[in-house]
Amino acid sequence: MNIQVTKKFLSDSLGILERIIPARSSNPVLTHLKIDATERGLFLSGTNLEIDLEAFVPAQVDGEASIVLPAHLFAQIVRNLGGELVELNYAGGELSVQSAGFKTKLQTGDLEAYPSLNFPSHSDLTLDARDLARSLSSVRYAAANEAFQAVFRGIKFELGGNRSRVVASDGYRLAIRDFGAGQGEAHNLILPARSADELVRVLREGEVKLTLGGNTLSVAADRVRMNLKLLDGDFPDYERVVPSDIKLSVRLPAAQLKESVSRVAVLADKNANNRVEFLVSEGKLQLAAEGDYGRAQDTLEVDQSGNDAAMSLGFNAKFVTDALGPIDGDVLIQLSGPTTPAMFKSLDDSGYLAVVVPLRV
Amino acid sequence: MNIQVTKKFLSDSLGILERIIPARSSNPVLTHLKIDATERGLFLSGTNLEIDLEAFVPAQVDGEASIVLPAHLFAQIVRNLGGELVELNYAGGELSVQSAGFKTKLQTGDLEAYPSLNFPSHSDLTLDARDLARSLSSVRYAAANEAFQAVFRGIKFELGGNRSRVVASDGYRLAIRDFGAGQGEAHNLILPARSADELVRVLREGEVKLTLGGNTLSVAADRVRMNLKLLDGDFPDYERVVPSDIKLSVRLPAAQLKESVSRVAVLADKNANNRVEFLVSEGKLQLAAEGDYGRAQDTLEVDQSGNDAAMSLGFNAKFVTDALGPIDGDVLIQLSGPTTPAMFKSLDDSGYLAVVVPLRV
Repeated sequence: MNIQVTKKFLSDSLGILERIIPARSSNPVLTHLKIDATERGLFLSGTNLEIDLEAFVPAQVDGEASIVLPAHLFAQIVRNLGGELVELNYAGGELSVQSAGFKTKLQTGDLEAYPSLNFPSHSDLTLDARDLARSLSSVRYAAANEAFQAVFRGIKFELGGNRSRVVASDGYRLAIRDFGAGQGEAHNLILPARSADELVRVLREGEVKLTLGGNTLSVAADRVRMNLKLLDGDFPDYERVVPSDIKLSVRLPAAQLKESVSRVAVLADKNANNRVEFLVSEGKLQLAAEGDYGRAQDTLEVDQSGNDAAMSLGFNAKFVTDALGPIDGDVLIQLSGPTTPAMFKSLDDSGYLAVVVPLRV
Repeated sequence: MNIQVTKKFLSDSLGILERIIPARSSNPVLTHLKIDATERGLFLSGTNLEIDLEAFVPAQVDGEASIVLPAHLFAQIVRNLGGELVELNYAGGELSVQSAGFKTKLQTGDLEAYPSLNFPSHSDLTLDARDLARSLSSVRYAAANEAFQAVFRGIKFELGGNRSRVVASDGYRLAIRDFGAGQGEAHNLILPARSADELVRVLREGEVKLTLGGNTLSVAADRVRMNLKLLDGDFPDYERVVPSDIKLSVRLPAAQLKESVSRVAVLADKNANNRVEFLVSEGKLQLAAEGDYGRAQDTLEVDQSGNDAAMSLGFNAKFVTDALGPIDGDVLIQLSGPTTPAMFKSLDDSGYLAVVVPLRV
């Protein structure tokens, strides 16, 4: 069997697979990738049992074959090749890789031992790939890295019905992004945040097709298909945390607030949640922090509105800068009281909203 | 006391000092920096007891003072400032830092407890700063990170007399770079490779003045002065390792060889020194490696000369790619035999030479 393939195409797909396939495993076959060489081209696939991934690589194939190879070694070889065209030949259990004056022969692995990966052929929903990627990236920070409630390590998808929404929370803050209208039947699911990271990486332009089956979300995008294991459990009723009774609002450029919080937070006490005080009054937002080495304050002009004339409350500096991260242009901060949740809203039509609970006095 | 200083100048100098001053120390005063505010401007200094460093910052100073401050905290505050101009005020043991709407007050440290740092006012030798930096960077890789002989963790300077030379070796390989003619009396010294790294970072254009005193090399460059503790001990007589009886030479583009070695080395056995075989014959250099997963080879056209018609020898791939690192354009490889040292020479007039001992069969 002979394969002629462009180094760049092969190398790009191997790069995606390398992120999924473990470098070491108690089950060594999982460190391998599978190449299915067909008339249409090459299908490369791999799994870490949480995520299955298949990438298509256009190639000229003479004679069909399925081969199992050490994934990271093969990727490293291809990356280092000097030529633009790569020639693969498979015979007698060995794969030869040739390019320019270079030639290598690799022992292939046990095809029978490799897990069978199945990707669905139908789809339940179609979304814009960039919208989905951007929305997941916007809320990702709010998911917990460690939490006794596993659902907080995931991102909730609310798809179909009347909306497309992703939500993340770690119990202290919440990030929501709405994108596009809903279509068809409603689907709610919780995807592990780490799997969402890998999904974001493969999403490019165009459409992405989603399929829901049992505890798996399957995704088909441009040249890549994935099966992503879902989290069990119920995502908490986050809508009751979103405040409705707004006492005071301020508006200012998000970038300006972000820089100011970072500046003041240098003096904040790391052992007291990086507490930064927000004091709003008379069209000014004063930020202040105090720690072992001294005290810092910064004053910003803001556009103030609402019934209350002034309010003072403390936030974890990192929670504020995280909440501001996805906001371009101005941020609208809506305060419901000194100890009740505050909202950080984007004023463009990005559909992004963050809720942060103030620190106790 | 009042100081007006440009944020960028202050921030750049703090960046240099932050690399030297430890973030944590059993002697907490060492985590501080000292500011000497004088009519001429600010002198910032710090030490890790291996390296003392002083940086000059132009500033408008009203009233002289010496202040000791937590270095990393101060650097972080300055880096985060929004304005271009910074105003410092010192009164009652507190330093206030102001810029745009931002203001902080910092507790200063105990000036009496701070070690006294003295930089010499005379110099023994003057070198071109860029030449020195480039030469140190060229040979740095060959110094050992760990070695039972401490001198191998240093870079030897041979200055004055009839040459300016730096040399590094870990006992398996050697790198030499000659730069400029010698001037005045001969000085030999061994600088710890890590201190050389810090020296390279501060060297810019223009001249650098060197002063030798006891076990210290002092350096005065543009706006920065350093005292660098030297290594005791004798550097081995490296010249006897440089082969003189050359049996076979090959010449080819260094970049081409470097890529080829990296390519073939993917298959090399990590537990056998990443061994790559070099076989020279008939105007060709064939590289080959073999490991657990298979075998790779690559063939390069070379310009071959010398009395021997062919030679085969094995190298640690990393030693070869390291040796080629500083070489632009063509490399001349001079082989003295299959088990005796090989030379890798730069063909431009950079004065660079590397010696690598082949692996045993």
